[in-house]
Amino acid sequence: MHTLQQLQNRVAAEILALPIKSTPPDLYNPIRYALSLNAKRIRPALTLLSCQLFGGTIEQALKPAIGMELFHNFTLLHDDIMDNAPLRRKEPTVHAKWNTNVAILSGDAMFTKAFQYIIAAPDAVVKPVSALFTDTALLVCEGQQLDMDYEKSGTVKIEDYIQMITLKTAVLIAASLKMGAIIADTSTHNAHHIYEYGKNLGIAFQLQDDILDVYADPEKFGKQIGGDIIANKKTYLLLSALYHANIDQYEQLTDLLHDTKNRYAAYEKISRVTTIYNALGVKEMAAEAVKHYYQLAITHLEAVEMDAPQKQMLYDFGSDMLQREL
Amino acid sequence: MHTLQQLQNRVAAEILALPIKSTPPDLYNPIRYALSLNAKRIRPALTLLSCQLFGGTIEQALKPAIGMELFHNFTLLHDDIMDNAPLRRKEPTVHAKWNTNVAILSGDAMFTKAFQYIIAAPDAVVKPVSALFTDTALLVCEGQQLDMDYEKSGTVKIEDYIQMITLKTAVLIAASLKMGAIIADTSTHNAHHIYEYGKNLGIAFQLQDDILDVYADPEKFGKQIGGDIIANKKTYLLLSALYHANIDQYEQLTDLLHDTKNRYAAYEKISRVTTIYNALGVKEMAAEAVKHYYQLAITHLEAVEMDAPQKQMLYDFGSDMLQREL
Repeated sequence: MHTLQQLQNRVAAEILALPIKSTPPDLYNPIRYALSLNAKRIRPALTLLSCQLFGGTIEQALKPAIGMELFHNFTLLHDDIMDNAPLRRKEPTVHAKWNTNVAILSGDAMFTKAFQYIIAAPDAVVKPVSALFTDTALLVCEGQQLDMDYEKSGTVKIEDYIQMITLKTAVLIAASLKMGAIIADTSTHNAHHIYEYGKNLGIAFQLQDDILDVYADPEKFGKQIGGDIIANKKTYLLLSALYHANIDQYEQLTDLLHDTKNRYAAYEKISRVTTIYNALGVKEMAAEAVKHYYQLAITHLEAVEMDAPQKQMLYDFGSDMLQREL
Repeated sequence: MHTLQQLQNRVAAEILALPIKSTPPDLYNPIRYALSLNAKRIRPALTLLSCQLFGGTIEQALKPAIGMELFHNFTLLHDDIMDNAPLRRKEPTVHAKWNTNVAILSGDAMFTKAFQYIIAAPDAVVKPVSALFTDTALLVCEGQQLDMDYEKSGTVKIEDYIQMITLKTAVLIAASLKMGAIIADTSTHNAHHIYEYGKNLGIAFQLQDDILDVYADPEKFGKQIGGDIIANKKTYLLLSALYHANIDQYEQLTDLLHDTKNRYAAYEKISRVTTIYNALGVKEMAAEAVKHYYQLAITHLEAVEMDAPQKQMLYDFGSDMLQREL
């Protein structure tokens, strides 16, 4: 039985050794570059882990697992164009290093390669595996669209936010696990519950990330503390604060959000917003939500029919996940 | 036996009735819009025609055929961003009507939907059909990259140009025909030759289009005469002219190409370039090339094992194709 870390290492080695053509250079070099950036390879490792835990082999699931990682990296590539992000994994994004056209087209090629790996699933399951992949890909597109819509929208309900992060982040974790289950040919009961386990865990993880952005130990957190506040990101914390604020707090918050004149230095904006968050107790509200979705995930994991030592690996993954970056 | 026109009509009706979600609107409305524009639906009709001629049924091939059309429209959507094109089929392009981000993401969603239709191929052929689709999609990406590379490059050889149009245009015609052949479960011999037939016909068609851009009857040609000349497009005519020009003609041509000061009105530029084309006889050279690739196509069609009345439909398609717009 391989550990998740071993499976991540296996996928990382496979990704590095992936055959990628060299011409046209502007089509294929960005793919090679994007895949060379440091990444944890969690999603494909989950596909392998799930396949293994349900009685399948690593080899059966390896290519579709790589397909999931290629897809994930494709979404990052295109999302970074849309979000105008200069950096990804501390390195220049493809559109910044080359240009937007190169990022669009090499992204399309990476998506195509993802599908090539997905359809290398064993014959008996190629249809359900491909259907899971395409259904999930469409949901991820919907999630990215909602994210862009909500950025411009004045009013976003917390339930809409949960829906957005479910589509943008959680369903890919869910599908990675379910894909392994399908390849291992387990029951639809198990495939359903492992999906729901992954989905709810993914939501909990994203909410945890919202908390960490403001409240993490700067020594341990990989990103800039308060980055979401500076970017006016409509996180669970901000949406909860706007919902629970009294008139005075609401005005302060919207003033800080609409600080088009840049009257506030970054550290001051972070400090003022955090003060309101603390007064309202939104950290605790978000922590409650994390607990809620984590509990839902566990309920689904309990419903999975699997021997205890195997299932323990999934419990461990869940609790580890809420303590580290995906 | 359905005619090509009947099959085009069938696909057109299916495309109009395609179930497309309504939310998020900015993700799905552009797909609906792009598919509502007037189009001939040649590629999916060829998949159906080929399947029918090789003894399969229309129903077997319908969904993968729609997948080919969705893919084709996806490439137009993303190409139009990269080419900064304001119009497509005389209507505003998606990135012009909405914005670039919407065009990127709705294109990704349309590509995903294309996959969904491709994998609805009959179980027995879903792997080869999907593999043909992904291999072709990657080649089309390469073709678009070469097209962008050549736009910026000073020196493009005619053979490189042929390679580019093969990838960007011809392989999709080829794959549309081959897909029908695979679904009808014909021999690999037939599948190979119908592919090569479509590929060479596609090349001949594109070269014919290069000629028509300059020499078409304005009454019959759907586009502006001389559009390629105005856009400095490196067509077969221009590349042949640059190759065969004497020093004086070469200097005149490069002066016209690099007319950054816009000294020449559009009609004057077209007239001057056409005069050089006429002096060099590049129209005749291009017509020779069309004939060459058309003849290659016919040779492959002859190698296909098929009853004469069926094969006649493909001969007719080939000769019709060189007299009209795809």
